[in-house]
Amino acid sequence: MNKAYLDAFAAIEQDKNQFLLVAVYGGEIAGCLQLSFIPGLSRLGMWRGQVESVRVATAFRGRGLGEEMLKWAIATCADKGCGLVQLHTDVARKEAIRFYEKLGFKPSHAGMKLVL
Amino acid sequence: MNKAYLDAFAAIEQDKNQFLLVAVYGGEIAGCLQLSFIPGLSRLGMWRGQVESVRVATAFRGRGLGEEMLKWAIATCADKGCGLVQLHTDVARKEAIRFYEKLGFKPSHAGMKLVL
Repeated sequence: MNKAYLDAFAAIEQDKNQFLLVAVYGGEIAGCLQLSFIPGLSRLGMWRGQVESVRVATAFRGRGLGEEMLKWAIATCADKGCGLVQLHTDVARKEAIRFYEKLGFKPSHAGMKLVL
Repeated sequence: MNKAYLDAFAAIEQDKNQFLLVAVYGGEIAGCLQLSFIPGLSRLGMWRGQVESVRVATAFRGRGLGEEMLKWAIATCADKGCGLVQLHTDVARKEAIRFYEKLGFKPSHAGMKLVL
C-alpha cells in the first residue's frame, strides 16, 4: 500500500476529532465515511460535525446503506453536542444533493474549493 | 464573558489542527478567521485546509483586509502541504462568492447544512 495512505490513516487516528466509519456486511467492506468534529467560536462556541469522503462499494449500492451511514453520522454529531452537520457535495451530482436533502440537509451554502 | 466562548477557545487551542488568525491594526482587533487542517484518505491521503468564521470589523472594511487574511490562510495551507482549501459561504451572499472567486476559489460544490 502507498505510504501516503498509511500516513493519512495515522494522522486521522491521532486526532481525537477525526473518525472513520467503516461499514462491513458479511465480512466485506461495504462503505466508509469520515466524520470531523470542528470546534468554533461562531454561534456561541458551537461545535460542528463535518462529513467527508462518503463511499459505498458498487456491489452494496441501492440498499439504503448510504442513508444508514449518514444517519449514524448525524446521531453521532447530536451525541457530541454539535449544533450542525455540514458537508460538500459536487453541484453536478443532483442525485447526491437530493439524497442529502431527504436526510434534512439544505443546500444553503456554496461549497468553494481552491486546488493548491 | 459567556463560558461557552471560553470552552470553545480552549477546544480550539488544544487541537493542533485548529488555528485562529486575529488581525490587529493600531491596537484594535480588525478581523479574524478560523483555519482547520483536516487529514483524509481521499486523493492519496490529501490534507485539506478549511476556512470558517471570517469576520472583518465594520470600521476596517473596504481596505483589502479580508483579502490579506485569506491570502495568509491559503499560504499557510500550502506550507502545511494541503492539496486544497475549502470553505462554505451563504448562497445569498453573491458579493462574498465573487470575493472568494477573485482569490481563486470555485463554487464547484453545494455546501449543505443540517441544523441539529
